Amino acid sequence: MKHGSPYGTHRVVEPQGVLPQGAWKIDNTMALCDNEILIDVSALNIDAASFTQIKTEAEGDLGRIAAIVRDIVGQRGKMHNPVTGSGGMLIGRVAAIGPALVGKIDLEVGDRIATLVSLSLTPLRIDAIRSIHVDKDQIEIDGEAILFETGLYAKLPEDIPEKVALAILDVAGAPAQTARLVRPGDTVVVVGGGGKSGTLCVYEAKKRAGPTGCVIGVSPFDKDCRRMSELGWVDHALRADATDAVAMMEAIADLTGGRMADVVINCVNIPNTEMGSILATRDGGKIYFFSMATSFTAAALGAEGVGKDVEMIVGNGYAKGHAVLALELLRESPTLRRLFETLYV
Amino acid sequence: MKHGSPYGTHRVVEPQGVLPQGAWKIDNTMALCDNEILIDVSALNIDAASFTQIKTEAEGDLGRIAAIVRDIVGQRGKMHNPVTGSGGMLIGRVAAIGPALVGKIDLEVGDRIATLVSLSLTPLRIDAIRSIHVDKDQIEIDGEAILFETGLYAKLPEDIPEKVALAILDVAGAPAQTARLVRPGDTVVVVGGGGKSGTLCVYEAKKRAGPTGCVIGVSPFDKDCRRMSELGWVDHALRADATDAVAMMEAIADLTGGRMADVVINCVNIPNTEMGSILATRDGGKIYFFSMATSFTAAALGAEGVGKDVEMIVGNGYAKGHAVLALELLRESPTLRRLFETLYV
Repeated sequence: MKHGSPYGTHRVVEPQGVLPQGAWKIDNTMALCDNEILIDVSALNIDAASFTQIKTEAEGDLGRIAAIVRDIVGQRGKMHNPVTGSGGMLIGRVAAIGPALVGKIDLEVGDRIATLVSLSLTPLRIDAIRSIHVDKDQIEIDGEAILFETGLYAKLPEDIPEKVALAILDVAGAPAQTARLVRPGDTVVVVGGGGKSGTLCVYEAKKRAGPTGCVIGVSPFDKDCRRMSELGWVDHALRADATDAVAMMEAIADLTGGRMADVVINCVNIPNTEMGSILATRDGGKIYFFSMATSFTAAALGAEGVGKDVEMIVGNGYAKGHAVLALELLRESPTLRRLFETLYV
Repeated sequence: MKHGSPYGTHRVVEPQGVLPQGAWKIDNTMALCDNEILIDVSALNIDAASFTQIKTEAEGDLGRIAAIVRDIVGQRGKMHNPVTGSGGMLIGRVAAIGPALVGKIDLEVGDRIATLVSLSLTPLRIDAIRSIHVDKDQIEIDGEAILFETGLYAKLPEDIPEKVALAILDVAGAPAQTARLVRPGDTVVVVGGGGKSGTLCVYEAKKRAGPTGCVIGVSPFDKDCRRMSELGWVDHALRADATDAVAMMEAIADLTGGRMADVVINCVNIPNTEMGSILATRDGGKIYFFSMATSFTAAALGAEGVGKDVEMIVGNGYAKGHAVLALELLRESPTLRRLFETLYV
């Protein structure tokens, strides 16, 4: 049995020298390396952008959708849409664990898992397409896939419906990073506190900041502010437009008696909220940017331009144990679970 | 005497509600607020992009360059080039200090300072243009300017030539942030360790990591690697292309016996070095991105894609005391001073 690269570079066919995600074609033969995991795949959750492109190309015809998917996987060894560049994730059961991993991971053969790394880097072989669920971007298949040593996964729990589990796993990094950042007594501003990841950050921030802390959820929408207040995890639901930096600064100064935030967590997916986040933070404070709309230069030059000595952190969707932590939140809070069951599935 | 906003929003004329940098026009009357500093300006160091645009528009004619500069400042109240959007910095003497700042800052009337905030947000009035130095993007003037309460500045020292001082002040944030990040015994990788800010990071990293630490300077250029070795602050000068993520990872693994870096400091101004930096870092390590070519999404999705639990920090050119620290480096190390005197002025 061979030993593979933890990042899967041993399976790159072409071009050589890149990581599996950057490769055009990867090796999807199912001969296991001693540090790989073999998965019996039951379903592919195709990335929304990818599935829309495929549906359009196939003019909605199920047979043609199936043919396109088979063709991509046949050519590339992975379900990596060449038009959109995106992948998705898969659900299946552990079929075999390379001997070098035994005892090092919390998986056993037979465990039901979802992969948290993209299909755009996951070796996959499709044996049969069972059914295509056009409404939920899902394809049920018979097939096998490989998870590399660094590949992320989550064990799917028995006590939480699959859809609810997948909805929270999608943003599992947000509460995990919040848990690391927030200290008892902190004043925490969650920009976009009414959204899916924002709600998890607000919940976790209140837990960590405790009764002496103060959590301020920010949204420009009345409805989000009302929900934040009803859920009861914010000390203040602030209706404000984070793209208006001066208004943000003044509103946070009002609520904090001029002390500003120790930690700002930015979860909004709209541009131009960097400066509002910077001005809401105290000198020496931290800003965590989860928003993929964050501009690196706007953040870097913005802080320097106003002479603000703050630590600005690039949101990392992965943190050790994030999947376990996220699923546990649903067990810990029936309110949170009800919210996910009604709003995000 | 009025009290102004620490960020200078009280001087914004139009449009209302933005910060001075975003404003088309700011108020450059020299009636001081109690938390402003009045500067007798002797020279404007115009941003290179801005000066090139003005020179081109003026077809190199000094009279026309002067007229364009006067026109911009007349219209906008600041030397904020409307074509390039950029500013520059100024040199002058402190003429007056608002009473609310006395005792809170280390300045006295008569001190010679350089502003470290952009001319694109600095209220300025030009009384006379004395001379234009086309070769060094500098204009000597008689005039006055205002520094807001949060405005950054550096006292120009008597013992260091102005040009050398300005060259190091330009990148003063890099060694200051390195000083905060690096602990004794750390393995530190400086990507772009042969450049201006990279050299300062290498120097400061070696000082902080100490004899039990290991500093690896990375450059794709032979010449830079030779210089790093000669200067003697790196434990290894690694010739490698940081855009080749797999090669970077393998080279750093070789040099560290597979332990990888505790801290990676990225100082190269070329794109696509995010993944190389991520793979060079150990799990739980930190990456400091000073490079303005950093892509936020490449960093965020890159780390998640390979399941790397690292903290990625957006480079902030400002850190409290950074100017004093940077100038002190030149006094501390004659080698560093010689390097700046010969290479960067």
